[in-house]
Amino acid sequence: MKRIAIDMDEVIADFNPKHLRLFNRDYNENLTVNDLVGTRLRDLRPHLQKEIIDYLNDATFFRDLDVMKDSQKVIKELSEQYEVFITTAAMEFPTSFAAKYEWLKEHFSFLNEMNIVFCGDKSIIRADFLIDDNVRHFKGFAGQGILFTAPHNINETGYVRVNNWLEVRDYFLK
Amino acid sequence: MKRIAIDMDEVIADFNPKHLRLFNRDYNENLTVNDLVGTRLRDLRPHLQKEIIDYLNDATFFRDLDVMKDSQKVIKELSEQYEVFITTAAMEFPTSFAAKYEWLKEHFSFLNEMNIVFCGDKSIIRADFLIDDNVRHFKGFAGQGILFTAPHNINETGYVRVNNWLEVRDYFLK
Repeated sequence: MKRIAIDMDEVIADFNPKHLRLFNRDYNENLTVNDLVGTRLRDLRPHLQKEIIDYLNDATFFRDLDVMKDSQKVIKELSEQYEVFITTAAMEFPTSFAAKYEWLKEHFSFLNEMNIVFCGDKSIIRADFLIDDNVRHFKGFAGQGILFTAPHNINETGYVRVNNWLEVRDYFLK
Repeated sequence: MKRIAIDMDEVIADFNPKHLRLFNRDYNENLTVNDLVGTRLRDLRPHLQKEIIDYLNDATFFRDLDVMKDSQKVIKELSEQYEVFITTAAMEFPTSFAAKYEWLKEHFSFLNEMNIVFCGDKSIIRADFLIDDNVRHFKGFAGQGILFTAPHNINETGYVRVNNWLEVRDYFLK
């Protein structure tokens, strides 16, 4: 059985809307996801970089992110024909462990928790495929990287790209 | 650079003494590590299996375990010639994440936190070697398993075995 490793933030967990909502509230701005196309919030407002990252050090930040559209049903389908692992770079935000785990147990309860991986450097992952929004994780990855479209990666070229979970389904199940 | 993945409990973190100390205190027993040779506490006192495992669900249990003798200096030496990752089956005890992370930052501060992996099924680990006390983790592991002697695994045969960290040094650095 082939194995698919799947990232969390901006792949199954909709990270940007909450991050922007908090930022807009605190700095009286009206940024939208469209403003993040080809960039990141911290690069758009570099003078607030520390504050922008600090939101993610809040232990609860990752607990109530929305689920990415169609990810649940497609991953459920995938898990019938593939071994599915969730592989998230949680070590970047160590306070996020509990929230990320609880979020997965709530929204992807059909996955075995033994298939959850909190890591940093994803070159440690042994899988046939890695679905991720960060191209840096493909560099040391031994399998096939699949770039999940996110605003910040829109200009990356040279990767297999999927734009949403229905395209993931097409890639793996057609 | 070859990569070595290293387990935590009973390999770098001395799990049994604390577990036994709490158990002896609560159940008025005088069990020692010698009583665990070829078995596990939960198998020695099966009627208390739930209680024995429940100690590990305490969020602080893993925070103050002793460091296994010589593990710090040997891993420091190894990390000069190998890529070293810490790979622990933390998903079995999700409340342990923070304590395990803090313990590693305290006792193995020379390791990059991006090289820490909290997982369940260790077949997800891509490394050349895995030093572990549980033979079940070698089954799906693609590299060379190295069994670190612990009381419970003393009767396991058919594996490369190291009895302590000085033997690990001999294996990798001689």
